[in-house]
Amino acid sequence: MHQTKLLSSRRLRRTPFTDRVEALGVRDFTVVNHMLLPKGFGRTVSEDYWHLRTHVQLWDVGCQRQVEITGPQAKAFVQRLTPRDLGALRYGQALYVPLTDERGGMVNDPVLLQVGSNRLWFSIADSDVLLWAKGFALGTGAQVEIDEPDVYPLAVQGPKAMDLVARVFGDGVRELRYFGFDRFDFRGHPLLICRSGYSKQGGVEIYVDDWSLGGELWDVLWEAGQPFQISPGCPNLPERVEGGLLSYGNDMTRENNPFECGLGRWCTTDGSIDYIGREALANIADPGPERQVRGVWLRAEECPVCSEPWPVTVDGRWCGQVTTAAYSPRLKAIVGIAMMEKYAWEPGTSVRVTSSEGCDFEGVVTTLPFPDLPPSELTAPRQ
Amino acid sequence: MHQTKLLSSRRLRRTPFTDRVEALGVRDFTVVNHMLLPKGFGRTVSEDYWHLRTHVQLWDVGCQRQVEITGPQAKAFVQRLTPRDLGALRYGQALYVPLTDERGGMVNDPVLLQVGSNRLWFSIADSDVLLWAKGFALGTGAQVEIDEPDVYPLAVQGPKAMDLVARVFGDGVRELRYFGFDRFDFRGHPLLICRSGYSKQGGVEIYVDDWSLGGELWDVLWEAGQPFQISPGCPNLPERVEGGLLSYGNDMTRENNPFECGLGRWCTTDGSIDYIGREALANIADPGPERQVRGVWLRAEECPVCSEPWPVTVDGRWCGQVTTAAYSPRLKAIVGIAMMEKYAWEPGTSVRVTSSEGCDFEGVVTTLPFPDLPPSELTAPRQ
Repeated sequence: MHQTKLLSSRRLRRTPFTDRVEALGVRDFTVVNHMLLPKGFGRTVSEDYWHLRTHVQLWDVGCQRQVEITGPQAKAFVQRLTPRDLGALRYGQALYVPLTDERGGMVNDPVLLQVGSNRLWFSIADSDVLLWAKGFALGTGAQVEIDEPDVYPLAVQGPKAMDLVARVFGDGVRELRYFGFDRFDFRGHPLLICRSGYSKQGGVEIYVDDWSLGGELWDVLWEAGQPFQISPGCPNLPERVEGGLLSYGNDMTRENNPFECGLGRWCTTDGSIDYIGREALANIADPGPERQVRGVWLRAEECPVCSEPWPVTVDGRWCGQVTTAAYSPRLKAIVGIAMMEKYAWEPGTSVRVTSSEGCDFEGVVTTLPFPDLPPSELTAPRQ
Repeated sequence: MHQTKLLSSRRLRRTPFTDRVEALGVRDFTVVNHMLLPKGFGRTVSEDYWHLRTHVQLWDVGCQRQVEITGPQAKAFVQRLTPRDLGALRYGQALYVPLTDERGGMVNDPVLLQVGSNRLWFSIADSDVLLWAKGFALGTGAQVEIDEPDVYPLAVQGPKAMDLVARVFGDGVRELRYFGFDRFDFRGHPLLICRSGYSKQGGVEIYVDDWSLGGELWDVLWEAGQPFQISPGCPNLPERVEGGLLSYGNDMTRENNPFECGLGRWCTTDGSIDYIGREALANIADPGPERQVRGVWLRAEECPVCSEPWPVTVDGRWCGQVTTAAYSPRLKAIVGIAMMEKYAWEPGTSVRVTSSEGCDFEGVVTTLPFPDLPPSELTAPRQ
């Protein structure tokens, strides 16, 4: 494992939950949005995988910063930042929205929440959407306020998550639909809770908008979670890859447009809405993208760290790159996310993949999310 | 020491030199601009400090990303991003330029290089200036191209740096003035070299604009550096604090304006140039800022990690915060950078500082850069 150490400084901001994860023995951090994100608590990734699929975990995802846009023109302004038609946007239902630049390149892929009549939050992945939105607003003279409020999401994830959250916030949270949100009382303070999270095991994200409440909320959930075998956790690599959850900076960058990322269904290109990159995206929508994300199975018993894209070939010809890879303890193969050229993106295509360290893998292209079984050619004994 | 681990992924981008620093046993990385920055090679910070002040070090600072602005309007556009008058900007002389938002808050503090007649580079600290500049350009309709080219600075720092660089690039490099730059041949490839770097020990930054040359250049410098006791290195905390080098994200954020950061001399507020934040800065310039960066001495034999600001008090009254702190093995005290309120910013003011862990220190406010000796009250035996 390429594991390296990270030194502390104010620049790598702590969250209201950092004290708690340190007390619980966090071993690794990574950095997202200039803020610490726990990456491990001393268990293996496989142990974490099974725990996440069986019980419930508390994740310090304070690094999912909010970019808040306020003012009577807030919604109209936000529409200019995304190809997704915001006609349906309303309090109570979050939307996943690609943000694109003038070439249609992905700037970020946040969740958008209308939290008040003139107040919207982008809950962002790892890029400074604040600067992007502010720069554009200043340039256009848009009458909006843009800032990063003191809001720190805490995720509760896993099959027992809703039982735990209902125990603390009441049974009303069970009525939230996927990506639905509302405010629920915590000791006299209404906290926004959204049925969402960066896993496929269910649960919520609690938007803690008061630093001083963070530790207390963590403790209450921790205590109430004991019967559910609660554990601290973090996004789990094989779990998120199997679930087809993309990671900005890993599986997509500014070099990729939403169609390549499988986000074409969120792009309105008929001219009915205007936004940055509209023309570029209209030119991509028809005839369609030249490459697109796919799953890829690799035959292996363990997985090297994918810290640089791994080239994918068919019959010796380059046809794409693996951008994330992890060993799935359930599927007994490496599961990867790959950006595949059109001529090789068909599920079932046999490929070869070479890791940065020179490991050579047999692979097969598949769908995202992953099917429940690897193809027989990968599970059959080696010829 | 709060040392934690950092997992690898494509999102935390490698540089052309990462292989080399790994081969040399890098122990720690941090993340700047979504890219890896080495933080240690197994020696103590004090050992590194003395080495940097005595010999020469190679620093992988590929994370100092370039934001390139091109086009006939490039210079006029860039002037709109900074309060510093760019009248004197020309090829061959880099400028340190604050970038400000509409409230005068610091967005970044890059070095600006005019590298061609219509081509400028911001060599940036840790925030997405690319998104800031692109957003503003799109909003205003400015006719400029903005992108992040494949350019990776490699720093050579220390008192023997110029001797080493001259050995590889010829004696011409010795003629560069401070912040002066020019192109110098490396195996048929002209590389931009600037007399600059994030230490006060002298040296250059080499802007490697071809990934495939990176490892080769590292190896040539490494080989030529053997007689100079070359070592791999990285910015050294006590050295940069003593030298008064601020760190964006640590010692200043968007909450601070350039006057607070001691950068008032780079701010033209007489209306002769226009830029984002001009009005806000004019209102701050007179009467002047309410707080400003200072050095602060703390009596101690070692230094806890400053991962959150430490409050500073005078007679029990809050009067500022320490944002970076390190033990200086030469000055035998903690040297810190603090944002001090006006009523307590006078050098010589006696203060108390409490670390996040609750350590209580006697302190004295001082200038930046630090004087060569701590005040007698801190070196005198404790009463």
